[in-house]
Amino acid sequence: MAQKILYDTDPGVDDAMALLLLARHPEVELVGITSVFGNAPIETTTRNALYLKQLFGIAAPVARGAAKALGSAEMPAGAAFVHGDNGLGNIPIPEVTAKADPRPAAQFIVDIVRAHPGEVTIVAVGRMTNLAEALALDPGIAPLVKAVSVMGGAFGRNGHFGNVTPVAEANIIGDPVAADIVFGARWPMTIVGLDVTHESVMTDAYMRALAAEAGTDGAFLWEVSRFYAGFYTKSQQYLDGFAVHDSSAVAAVLHPEFFTYARGPVRVIADGIASGQTILRPEGYYDRARDWDGRPSCNVAVTVDAAAFLRFYRDTIIDGAR
Amino acid sequence: MAQKILYDTDPGVDDAMALLLLARHPEVELVGITSVFGNAPIETTTRNALYLKQLFGIAAPVARGAAKALGSAEMPAGAAFVHGDNGLGNIPIPEVTAKADPRPAAQFIVDIVRAHPGEVTIVAVGRMTNLAEALALDPGIAPLVKAVSVMGGAFGRNGHFGNVTPVAEANIIGDPVAADIVFGARWPMTIVGLDVTHESVMTDAYMRALAAEAGTDGAFLWEVSRFYAGFYTKSQQYLDGFAVHDSSAVAAVLHPEFFTYARGPVRVIADGIASGQTILRPEGYYDRARDWDGRPSCNVAVTVDAAAFLRFYRDTIIDGAR
Repeated sequence: MAQKILYDTDPGVDDAMALLLLARHPEVELVGITSVFGNAPIETTTRNALYLKQLFGIAAPVARGAAKALGSAEMPAGAAFVHGDNGLGNIPIPEVTAKADPRPAAQFIVDIVRAHPGEVTIVAVGRMTNLAEALALDPGIAPLVKAVSVMGGAFGRNGHFGNVTPVAEANIIGDPVAADIVFGARWPMTIVGLDVTHESVMTDAYMRALAAEAGTDGAFLWEVSRFYAGFYTKSQQYLDGFAVHDSSAVAAVLHPEFFTYARGPVRVIADGIASGQTILRPEGYYDRARDWDGRPSCNVAVTVDAAAFLRFYRDTIIDGAR
Repeated sequence: MAQKILYDTDPGVDDAMALLLLARHPEVELVGITSVFGNAPIETTTRNALYLKQLFGIAAPVARGAAKALGSAEMPAGAAFVHGDNGLGNIPIPEVTAKADPRPAAQFIVDIVRAHPGEVTIVAVGRMTNLAEALALDPGIAPLVKAVSVMGGAFGRNGHFGNVTPVAEANIIGDPVAADIVFGARWPMTIVGLDVTHESVMTDAYMRALAAEAGTDGAFLWEVSRFYAGFYTKSQQYLDGFAVHDSSAVAAVLHPEFFTYARGPVRVIADGIASGQTILRPEGYYDRARDWDGRPSCNVAVTVDAAAFLRFYRDTIIDGAR
C-alpha cells in the first residue's frame, strides 16, 4: 500500500530533486505540498512548488506557508548564492498556471493529518515553521502523525559540523525556536542532518548518467543542479559534485535501513553564538544534564550507506522517468 | 635549556599524575604551581598541591587561587565521584607542612610572567579562573607569556563530545566566562580537549608496569589512580583503564608533535543549554559567522599519537623515578 506523504519544502534545488523522487516513487502517495520561506522568500518558494507540481504532473495541492521565523532569528545571509536568485538554480521558469490551496500551510497540515489519522508521514526539508504553527493550531495532531522525517541540523558526527556557523545548519538556524518545538513534540521523529547528507555526493558523472537515461526528468535534474553544483565546487568542499540533503530525508522514510541512528532527546539553541545548534542527549548518557529531561527521543541519523542511497535515487528516477 | 613552566591545577587525580610528569622531566623547570577550585573545593585542591609539592620534592612555590567561577556557572554536581572526597582518590593524606605563597594565584602568575618575559609557559588543567583574573589584574602579561597549554573543552572530533553535558567538558563548564576570556587573549594558545584525551587510555596493565618499575613514584601513581580507574570502569566507557586528561596538556608543550591541530578562534558558550561548549571556527571557514571575528587563532588538538604519548609518560616517570 502506498505511503501517504506530506512534503514541507522551500524549493530550492535539492528540494526539487527530492520532490521528483517522491513523485516518481511507485509506493508514495503525495497528499500535499506545503511551502515555507528559506532557500528563497515565500513568494518564490511557493511559486516554485506550484511550478514543480505542474512540471512533474503532481495531483496533490500546494499550500502556502510561513514567510518568516517564529523567533527573531536571522540568517547571516540569504541563500541565493547556493540556490540561485529564483531558488531553482536560475533555470528559466515559465508562467505558472497552477493555483495554491486557499488554506495556510499550518491549517492544511492539520486538516490532512486529521483526515488520515495514523497514516500521514511528514517529510520536512525547510525551516520547521509550518510544523510548529500546525502544532500551535492543534497540538492534538502529534500522536496522529505516522512519522516525521526532517532534513536539518548537524550533530558533529563523521566530522561534519554546521554549514552556516561552526555548529548550525541552515534549516535550523533559520528558525531555531520552531525546530525546538518540533523536535520536542510527541510524534515519531527522525532527523537527517549534515552528518549524513554530506556523506552522499552526486558527482558530475552521476548526474550526466541521469540526464542521459531519465528522459525529460533527467534533463531537468541536470539543468536545475548546475548552479548548485557550481556553489559546491567553489566552496571547495566537493571538487566534483554536491551533497544530497533533502532527498536523504525522503530516503529515511522509504529506506530507513540505509542509515544507522543514535536515539535521544534533541534540543535546539535559540540564540547567541550557538544559535541553531542541534544537540542530542544520547539515551543513557548525561543524566546530570537536565535541559533534555521530559522530551521524547528522536532518531538521529549518524551513518549512511551512500552507495545504496545513490543507487536508489538513480533507479527510482530512471524507472519512473517521463 | 630547561623550559620554565607554571602549572595551574585543581588536584585531582590526573592533575597529580601530570604534576609528577612535570616534576620528573629533565627539561622542565617548574616555576610555580597555582591552585584553583574544581575537582574539589579550593581548600582541598590547595592542600593537595602542597602535599604533592612535598611528596614529589618540588622546589617551586604553591599559590592559592580562585574559590569560585567568575560567572554564575554551576556544575551540575561536584566531582567527588570521579576524584574521591579528598580529590586524590581517597588515598590517606598525611599532615602537610609546606606553606602556600602569600600571594593570590592571579598576582603570582603576573609576577612570574613579568619576572621572565617571553620565557614562561603556562599549563592550565583546571577552571580558567586564575588565568582570567591574572589578565584582569594585568592585561599586559598576555604577549609576555611564551605559550599556554590548556586541558579543557570538547570539539566533537573523533566522536568525542562533552563529559558533563552532551557538549560541555568539566573544566570549561565550571567557569565558561573565564574560558572565553582566556581563549580570546593574545598569547599563543593550545587547547587539548576530550577529542584527544579520550583517545589515550592507561590500562591496568600499563599502570601495573609503572608501579613495578618506577619506585615510590610508581607506587603512588598506582594508589592514587585506583578510585579514578574505578569511576571509568563503572561509567562503562573504558572497561580497562582511564583517559589521560591533564598529562595531555603537558605533552602538548614538551612533544607538540604527538598531536595534530586545527587552527582558528575559539568561543565558549557562557549560559543556557550549551553552557561550557567550546566552539572552534576553523580558519578559512564560516566567514558569515561573526561571533568569532577579531579573536586570535588557537591550536586545537584534533588527533594524538596515543602510543607515543603513553610511551613518553612511562619513560619519563621510570627514568626520573625516586
